Amino acid sequence: MSSMEIETLIGALSKLPGLGPRSARRAVLHLLKRRETGLMPLLHALEAVNARLSTCDTCGNVDTSNPCQICADPRREARILCVVEDVSDLWAFERSRLFPGRYHVLGGRLSALDGVKPEDLNIGPLLQRVEAKGIDEVILAMNATLEGQTTAHYLAERLEAYPVKVSQLAHGLPVGGELDYLDEGTLAQALRARRPVS
Amino acid sequence: MSSMEIETLIGALSKLPGLGPRSARRAVLHLLKRRETGLMPLLHALEAVNARLSTCDTCGNVDTSNPCQICADPRREARILCVVEDVSDLWAFERSRLFPGRYHVLGGRLSALDGVKPEDLNIGPLLQRVEAKGIDEVILAMNATLEGQTTAHYLAERLEAYPVKVSQLAHGLPVGGELDYLDEGTLAQALRARRPVS
Repeated sequence: MSSMEIETLIGALSKLPGLGPRSARRAVLHLLKRRETGLMPLLHALEAVNARLSTCDTCGNVDTSNPCQICADPRREARILCVVEDVSDLWAFERSRLFPGRYHVLGGRLSALDGVKPEDLNIGPLLQRVEAKGIDEVILAMNATLEGQTTAHYLAERLEAYPVKVSQLAHGLPVGGELDYLDEGTLAQALRARRPVS
Repeated sequence: MSSMEIETLIGALSKLPGLGPRSARRAVLHLLKRRETGLMPLLHALEAVNARLSTCDTCGNVDTSNPCQICADPRREARILCVVEDVSDLWAFERSRLFPGRYHVLGGRLSALDGVKPEDLNIGPLLQRVEAKGIDEVILAMNATLEGQTTAHYLAERLEAYPVKVSQLAHGLPVGGELDYLDEGTLAQALRARRPVS
């Protein structure tokens, strides 16, 4: 019905998370009708990112510079390292603006099911960073899933060989969470990690 | 937090219908992690469309060729013209594969509220087409909104001067529609346009 080029564009957009064939079609119509304000800015933004996209040799973050902006920022605390599964987790931390240190992106989590082994993850470079540099603390910020926690356990064991403090994110009641809706696992963790009222 | 290029890309994507800032961020992460299979195909598809995008001089359709694929297709019935408000309506007809003729895209509808006047729409070229070529029937396929119907009335009056049959889409009960959920306007139209049972 439309030209091959337009159909190809619909196909490429429909692969984005959150967009199906229908909404991709709507998005393309939006772009076609707004060449100057929609299509061209998107095209140029993609070109700019594509021209400079790289994976940070230090931490595994994806950015348009290498080393990435975080590794290159002298204001970021180099002595404290937050290990995350994926770039999306790094972004979540950055959005919160709570973490002053630097990151290490594993690029996944150990998974027997998906056949992901330690050598498939960005673990060697993590150990090298810990070995080489003045790092005081490594925070294992894996997801609270079985595979995430397996990965954290594995890393904790590997890190035992080094004189660094290894910590993990606290588990418990999410802020605003209601006990009634909480799963048993979280409730158990929250109970076990209970603290004295100050 | 991320580089300026990445933020710009998030901004450009978040302007697409159906994508907000949050889902645009997820979409960009998806692209960054899949340079070869996600980012590059999307970039090339946009380049191809942008390089060839044009508005059909004949009908006002947006396509990667001019005249558009429909106007250029000799198998499309040239004697019957379907006038639509927007390219999206043309696409809706084409998806249904029901209409064998050609189109004329107005690029909007008359609107006192938005200050859209006849001279703002692609009406002159429509009258020229009707005047010049062997067109037998013009179908006014405006939306069943107040402004759409105002536009249809206006066009019907302008077309009175020409020896063409002017028709309009039927209004009534949508297929699968339940009376109980139908608005009064549609019900009134369906009643007024009732047909003998054959």
